[in-house]
Amino acid sequence: MTAPDLPADAGPVAIICGGGTFPFTVADALTRSGRGAVLFALRGWADPERVQHYPHHWAHVAQLGRFLRLARREGCRDVIFIGTLVRPSFRQLINFDLATLRVLPRAIRHFYGGDNHLLTGMARMLEEHGFRLLGAHEVAPEILVQEGALGQVVPTARDRDDIAHALDVLHAIGPLDIGQGVVVANRHVIAVEAAEGTDQMLERVAELRRNGRFRAPLGTGVLVKAPKPGQDHRFDLPSIGPYTIDGIAQAGLAGLAVAAGGVIVAEPQIVVQKADKAKAFVFGFPETAGGSA
Amino acid sequence: MTAPDLPADAGPVAIICGGGTFPFTVADALTRSGRGAVLFALRGWADPERVQHYPHHWAHVAQLGRFLRLARREGCRDVIFIGTLVRPSFRQLINFDLATLRVLPRAIRHFYGGDNHLLTGMARMLEEHGFRLLGAHEVAPEILVQEGALGQVVPTARDRDDIAHALDVLHAIGPLDIGQGVVVANRHVIAVEAAEGTDQMLERVAELRRNGRFRAPLGTGVLVKAPKPGQDHRFDLPSIGPYTIDGIAQAGLAGLAVAAGGVIVAEPQIVVQKADKAKAFVFGFPETAGGSA
Repeated sequence: MTAPDLPADAGPVAIICGGGTFPFTVADALTRSGRGAVLFALRGWADPERVQHYPHHWAHVAQLGRFLRLARREGCRDVIFIGTLVRPSFRQLINFDLATLRVLPRAIRHFYGGDNHLLTGMARMLEEHGFRLLGAHEVAPEILVQEGALGQVVPTARDRDDIAHALDVLHAIGPLDIGQGVVVANRHVIAVEAAEGTDQMLERVAELRRNGRFRAPLGTGVLVKAPKPGQDHRFDLPSIGPYTIDGIAQAGLAGLAVAAGGVIVAEPQIVVQKADKAKAFVFGFPETAGGSA
Repeated sequence: MTAPDLPADAGPVAIICGGGTFPFTVADALTRSGRGAVLFALRGWADPERVQHYPHHWAHVAQLGRFLRLARREGCRDVIFIGTLVRPSFRQLINFDLATLRVLPRAIRHFYGGDNHLLTGMARMLEEHGFRLLGAHEVAPEILVQEGALGQVVPTARDRDDIAHALDVLHAIGPLDIGQGVVVANRHVIAVEAAEGTDQMLERVAELRRNGRFRAPLGTGVLVKAPKPGQDHRFDLPSIGPYTIDGIAQAGLAGLAVAAGGVIVAEPQIVVQKADKAKAFVFGFPETAGGSA
């Protein structure tokens, strides 16, 4: 099935492919829909084992010219950008090509402006070259977390209170392009995610339990993830996966709540299995949900 | 020299003494001023080696009744509360006495309400028993960071820009009782402090450099600390010390900026020595300073 506004003759989708499993989930969905995908696998990030099973080209992160040439030759018009991508160093940027060189001053500005600026800037550059940047969720909506509980456990009233408080925090920091995750227990903010990412933040919460700085009973506290307000959903949506549930369990939290329709989930069956086993909830709240009034 | 509104006949100051070196710095200042101090050393937190050199009583954190009785006997009317105090577990609270038992429901509510609530609640309880809670800075103003550069290094224009952005972040999260510190580099938020404390946050920044998630050149980025907006300055002011400079240096930051008059500094001479050696600035900005407009 093709998404309504995407005619099947639009050609395969160019997937600029970072690390992790999401790019392959999306490529599989595009294959099933008959539209097809071509991976532009980023060296150093994309998993070579898995890339080889798809139509693909390897590229360096700064080879914009190479990407434009190959994507046109493949008949791609739509581009999605998916997968983990740790901010590149300038050393990696030394591999830039001519087209990149031309946009380099702008790229540097984006590079230093926070993740939102970086990615919005890349989208604009692609569009100036005649491509259309789509979100992975537009071509494979099944990767998004839906509203309600994913597994058998549901949040208690106290958990919902913590979720509301966490949303207050995310709304307060949202305009500042900081992060997409926060851990709250009994209305006390335990951790705020910034450059370290969700997994490392959860490791920190587990450590705070071990060293006595976070003493709420096991099974107390929530991780809440949501896109930044105004965040462009076409890339860099927050994501969860089986490893997130492992982190929740090790941190002794009650569960994980995410903005439904605004967070992508890797391997949802395994996520549900692990969450049920850990007696943790995985809950999608309406993305318009505010914090406490 | 006695502070203007503190008659010398007000009796010694009762110092409820947590961990770290600040309680002794303040006790020394009170001794020099002729007013004197009695330490109420909290078991498990206060340093027994140093406590023994001062008039003192040992107490458990939840022995409010014992404190009230002894402090009255010592002729204390003014109380200050200083030193690190990791949130006690309920196991530690099992040592509560009768007076504590009477206020326990309230204490539990404060306990779960975030640090501001916890400490504001304790202050109110003391005042209901006829004591006056003062800030350590009121009896020993020399422990506060003053405006300007403490050492030889001053922030560059880029550092000042990062400081302004960090203040924006602190202002945004301030009402939510999260933390008092943030690390910003090139207007990118690298880390936000919550329950882990400043030292652990700086360790995280150092690790983010090692694992490539924070790639700005060495000597880029600032740590900014300020009291939460509306925070009661009588206790729980943010603090810095030689270990903070060690953390700054290991994280490869340009320096450390704090709200002048709102942050206490331990061992300032060593702080300046270490900062100069690390070519890092330690800067006090006016506490009324806003972020970028």
